[in-house]
Amino acid sequence: MAKTNDPKRNERGVTPQSEDFSAWYNELVLKAELADRGPVRGTMIMRPYGYRIWELVQAELDQRIKATGHENAYFPLFIPEGHLRREADHVEGFAPELAVVTHAGGKELEEPLVVRPTSETVIGEAFARWIDSYRDLPMLMNQWANVVRWELRTRLFLRTTEFLWQEGHTAHATADEAAEEVLVAAGFYEEIVRDCAAISSVIGDKTPSERFAGAERTVTLEAMMRDGRALQAGTSHGLGTNFAKAFDITYTSVEGVEEFCHTTSWGMSTRLIGGIIMAHGDDRGLVLPPRLAPFQVVIVPIGRGDDLGPVTEAAKKLALELTAVGVRVKVDDRPQMSPGFKFNEWELRGAPVRLELGPRDLSSGSVTLAGRLAEAKEQVALDEVVSTMPSRLDAYHDLLLERSTSFRLAHTRSVTSWEELVEAVSTGFAVAFHCGREVCEDRIKEETTATPRCIPLDGPEASGACAVCGEPSAYGKQIIFARAY
Amino acid sequence: MAKTNDPKRNERGVTPQSEDFSAWYNELVLKAELADRGPVRGTMIMRPYGYRIWELVQAELDQRIKATGHENAYFPLFIPEGHLRREADHVEGFAPELAVVTHAGGKELEEPLVVRPTSETVIGEAFARWIDSYRDLPMLMNQWANVVRWELRTRLFLRTTEFLWQEGHTAHATADEAAEEVLVAAGFYEEIVRDCAAISSVIGDKTPSERFAGAERTVTLEAMMRDGRALQAGTSHGLGTNFAKAFDITYTSVEGVEEFCHTTSWGMSTRLIGGIIMAHGDDRGLVLPPRLAPFQVVIVPIGRGDDLGPVTEAAKKLALELTAVGVRVKVDDRPQMSPGFKFNEWELRGAPVRLELGPRDLSSGSVTLAGRLAEAKEQVALDEVVSTMPSRLDAYHDLLLERSTSFRLAHTRSVTSWEELVEAVSTGFAVAFHCGREVCEDRIKEETTATPRCIPLDGPEASGACAVCGEPSAYGKQIIFARAY
Repeated sequence: MAKTNDPKRNERGVTPQSEDFSAWYNELVLKAELADRGPVRGTMIMRPYGYRIWELVQAELDQRIKATGHENAYFPLFIPEGHLRREADHVEGFAPELAVVTHAGGKELEEPLVVRPTSETVIGEAFARWIDSYRDLPMLMNQWANVVRWELRTRLFLRTTEFLWQEGHTAHATADEAAEEVLVAAGFYEEIVRDCAAISSVIGDKTPSERFAGAERTVTLEAMMRDGRALQAGTSHGLGTNFAKAFDITYTSVEGVEEFCHTTSWGMSTRLIGGIIMAHGDDRGLVLPPRLAPFQVVIVPIGRGDDLGPVTEAAKKLALELTAVGVRVKVDDRPQMSPGFKFNEWELRGAPVRLELGPRDLSSGSVTLAGRLAEAKEQVALDEVVSTMPSRLDAYHDLLLERSTSFRLAHTRSVTSWEELVEAVSTGFAVAFHCGREVCEDRIKEETTATPRCIPLDGPEASGACAVCGEPSAYGKQIIFARAY
Repeated sequence: MAKTNDPKRNERGVTPQSEDFSAWYNELVLKAELADRGPVRGTMIMRPYGYRIWELVQAELDQRIKATGHENAYFPLFIPEGHLRREADHVEGFAPELAVVTHAGGKELEEPLVVRPTSETVIGEAFARWIDSYRDLPMLMNQWANVVRWELRTRLFLRTTEFLWQEGHTAHATADEAAEEVLVAAGFYEEIVRDCAAISSVIGDKTPSERFAGAERTVTLEAMMRDGRALQAGTSHGLGTNFAKAFDITYTSVEGVEEFCHTTSWGMSTRLIGGIIMAHGDDRGLVLPPRLAPFQVVIVPIGRGDDLGPVTEAAKKLALELTAVGVRVKVDDRPQMSPGFKFNEWELRGAPVRLELGPRDLSSGSVTLAGRLAEAKEQVALDEVVSTMPSRLDAYHDLLLERSTSFRLAHTRSVTSWEELVEAVSTGFAVAFHCGREVCEDRIKEETTATPRCIPLDGPEASGACAVCGEPSAYGKQIIFARAY
């Protein structure tokens, strides 16, 4: 039997990742039927296979959000233009990307409406009405919503004019409580990225130039893709009293004094799916982490004529047994496709485990198991395959996370000179002392397209000479530079 | 102890339903913290208590949609204006209600973008690309999304310029299969309305004038509110080949012939929550059906000083035990509110069951149970209250459904004359023979504001003289007229 990991066997073929990462990505998203382009430039249709990944992310994240006392709500899509202007940095950051409704119900509107690029302003106004005294605090809310940012260069999942996300918004009595909340939310994202998406990332603070418009602090998760670039997988913002002042979000303290609230906001979006594709995928297609894979196991019944009935029946029985132990299974019994075609398709679509069930397997009471990344197939007894599948999927998750961690570490270099920095960001993350001056950041950006990704939370305290200009370092530790999506 | 069902005791008071139904509704939505107004006219903020009801509807409906082979996907918010024009009836129906984006990214757009009022057109175009042969059929999709319809007269939940819904969209090889699908989807809505919302409704066909823009058939669920008006709780449309022709959704049949698909679409929205409020609520506030109540049981610990610690602890233990048997519980241990305030608040907010736990209850190993609609309180042993709660909630559901059914039947009259029809629609549903002519429908509408609600699916075949004009009846059976939300 031909080896199934021969890329030439992939009949639906995508450009190999190793040849052209960008073409590989674009073709794979379409061919794996994760997404398609919408009729308006930059918009995306999330097809069922891609949307299912998002639903699994949602379930995992929503559970964590609720378990920590946050409640879901829903705020309007349209924001009066004037609202956005109330926080100066905020409007400056978002103005160039806004989509604006000027006509509705057959008439020109008196005040144009902005389609929300994020909801701090509309939620801020509501919080101001709802919060009266310290008893109303903390106010912990979240919404699952679509947002619109008119980007010039778009790419499915990574940068689309409309995307789906959750946005948490909270208000607190003290700066300390708000600071704690920023880390609680960042903690959700760490868990999703590591424990569900099996991606290794670095958590840290954004430098001032890269912060959210209107934030005093932005904590980010920077994951490494297989081309060495960074992808921001989730961000959590400490907004200080900026939005509280702009929207008059105040409370009466225990002592009877009117005080401004300290607010936070935090979000994770459908771009995480782009990150999953690029953090794990290979020449043969997607490699989906099992906890977010629409189908963790795909069963392909193999047989012709009289054999087909019994193997298909056995496949369906096996699927029920796997479902009963909590495994997401698909039986691919499409009559018009050959087994070989199906093997290739489910490799391309990244199913963690494929089970082949033919007449010979059936008579020996076993099944042929092919892991998406395994070199060789395994013959496993039918009852054993059911009882061991949950632990096999856990082991596969661990393998992916380990692989992602090794890859990140192998492509991260501590650098002290311009030349080293340039080389490091061409293949991964550069860890460097930096003076913190924008002019210096700008030079890096112009000449390498790399940007400061974060000041790692767990980086050891140290200081030294800026790798670019030699001036004394800022931030009290080394920071990470990389090219980013 | 004062009777808790004395409306005067409701400190947060809303206008009694019996006095002014409309004021009662508007005040209750705000005071029960179900929703609030957004900054843009006609928009709504769904607050956590209201949004949680929607999440419970979503979970119930999503499960039914998926169990029947439909897959969730997500399509773009923005639709090129030209797309909408491709189906003539469709654009005519929706044009007056559109919100239009004319500027984005700081520039005027070449083609204005419509904010989706519904997604037949954008999904139709995608189906045309994805469907190739009979093997791709049926294509069964659903999306959970926000839509925008610029209504002039708005009302929280019932008619808001933006609302949340699911919209199913399917394509089939034959007219018969599409017809079957229309009823499958209507069946979801019947189950949600009856088995979850505990509302009695009539299922039937819309008359031609009331059909969805572009549909050949619209099946609707018409529920009766406690003021006798109808509320459309969900609709399912047979679109024939109208959209298939407009968007070129074709397939190659087994015989190799290119054929048009037969498509359907169906939706249920957040207006159902308005229906729940108006179908069950009373002078004292909301009466939530237990299967959609955010909290099915609210426990109020009662005690001062040294007593408070033990009762609160016991309340939390009881909550855990109830949670373990699948009950949604809230312990209301807010220190600053009196028990009486809490009783009133949870009556206003419609919690099905309230458990009062004081020192005397605790020492006798029991709890005081107050049902939202019960005349008298009950003393129940602590272990019994846990083991019987699921069946108590089921019984409460049955009671609400029965009450809703009796109410509907008591306010439905078969009529044969204009006078009878006028009287019947002033308090409920009129069942009448009708000639089917628009001029006759218009007269009813102008003089009574009632409209044809549906041709009941299970109405006996019969014919007679139109109650309005005396001409021979259309539709082969009596139809329902009512004033509607």
